[in-house]
Amino acid sequence: MARWAVQLEYDGTHFVGWQYQITGPSIQAVLEDAVSRLAGEKTVCTAAGRTDSGVHASGQVVHFDLLREITPSKLLLALNYHLKPHPVAVVRVAAVDENFNARFSAIGRSYCYSILNRPARPALLANRVWHVPQALNVAVMHEGAQLLLGKHDFSSFRASACQASSPLRTLDRLDVVRDGEIVKVIAEARSFLHHQVRNMVGSLKLVGEGRWAPVDMARVLAACDRGAAGPTAPPDGLCLTGVKYAENPFS
Amino acid sequence: MARWAVQLEYDGTHFVGWQYQITGPSIQAVLEDAVSRLAGEKTVCTAAGRTDSGVHASGQVVHFDLLREITPSKLLLALNYHLKPHPVAVVRVAAVDENFNARFSAIGRSYCYSILNRPARPALLANRVWHVPQALNVAVMHEGAQLLLGKHDFSSFRASACQASSPLRTLDRLDVVRDGEIVKVIAEARSFLHHQVRNMVGSLKLVGEGRWAPVDMARVLAACDRGAAGPTAPPDGLCLTGVKYAENPFS
Repeated sequence: MARWAVQLEYDGTHFVGWQYQITGPSIQAVLEDAVSRLAGEKTVCTAAGRTDSGVHASGQVVHFDLLREITPSKLLLALNYHLKPHPVAVVRVAAVDENFNARFSAIGRSYCYSILNRPARPALLANRVWHVPQALNVAVMHEGAQLLLGKHDFSSFRASACQASSPLRTLDRLDVVRDGEIVKVIAEARSFLHHQVRNMVGSLKLVGEGRWAPVDMARVLAACDRGAAGPTAPPDGLCLTGVKYAENPFS
Repeated sequence: MARWAVQLEYDGTHFVGWQYQITGPSIQAVLEDAVSRLAGEKTVCTAAGRTDSGVHASGQVVHFDLLREITPSKLLLALNYHLKPHPVAVVRVAAVDENFNARFSAIGRSYCYSILNRPARPALLANRVWHVPQALNVAVMHEGAQLLLGKHDFSSFRASACQASSPLRTLDRLDVVRDGEIVKVIAEARSFLHHQVRNMVGSLKLVGEGRWAPVDMARVLAACDRGAAGPTAPPDGLCLTGVKYAENPFS
């Protein structure tokens, strides 16, 4: 038996999220179906990040075990064949140690949240961005974002449904940058609370619109109260861009 | 009466192209429907480039006449409201001189053709790229592309259905550049023959794969025979990125 890690890209628009739900198709179900057809037996897949409905990924990492022997290039081809016509693709594959666990071995997650900041609604980027028509001041958004860095109780940015045992998280990076009409919020941490990135973005948007001062981000953080923060940004703009391990399985 | 120019962005995937067809929905029909609802009367829209089915635009330019008085910002909002839920958006609007014609006043068109060059099929970029799994040598593609610059008979790269009176065109730019997994072919000319960009890209791909030498592009051009060139690249990767006028209506 061999354990495999795969890097996964998907358009989360029409999925209920990574995890099984009785309410609709999940990325997990689609991938497990492809792996199981290849394996000839039911195979379970474990992901580094359980992305929500409508959230995308370019760098999700998943592991599973295969009895059948296969080369990496054939595994990549076969999985992408079986994943058709779903908007889910296996970008890289690697044989990994049996102790590798996509979720529990991960020491960092990176997300990018994209805002389309122009009067006109999105056409080419529909379902990929949050449309904010009012001009955002990216400099003050970035300034406010820096006040969230470090180890804190992030209860103010935590979904009520969050199942984590502790609200303590260490935020390593929260950059706000503009690329033309697109404002990107880049977030990195060992792990995030449920909806943490979308809730931080929802508050940063208020700063960018001038409705809040940058320092309000510190006030909201200190409140440890979800009611103190801004609304949750929609899932469309969020993309899981990478997962970090002590040793990169794909290098 | 006032003449308006608008800059249009659209996802051409599920359209028959810019122009009316009895076979399905066109971008022209969707836009004329939105303008006509606003105008209260049937209004005709003229585009700079009659993009094919599956071809996208970020910088299409269209003009139409309105009897009704309206401010530019209200026109942009109203058109985008009426264009819902189609993946078509009005990005800019400008009042123009009555002599302005989106098609006949245009002195340049820019296209970008995107190739996803990696073993894995596209997920996030589905319908937006041509998937070429074999590694492409971008340097030789660019070298071959330079042999097409200037004024030539482009019959080798012209669709049989092309209605232009002459096969002579002047190609001002044909750059091939790599941006990670994406290979972009950027083409600029006063105007293009039908399928010219897609036919040039289809041949450049053969150069990138090493099946043709760069100099074969000159041989194919000189043949003035569609049968000498490579196959037509699919529409998915093509995007009309801009139209040039003696005076930019949106500046």
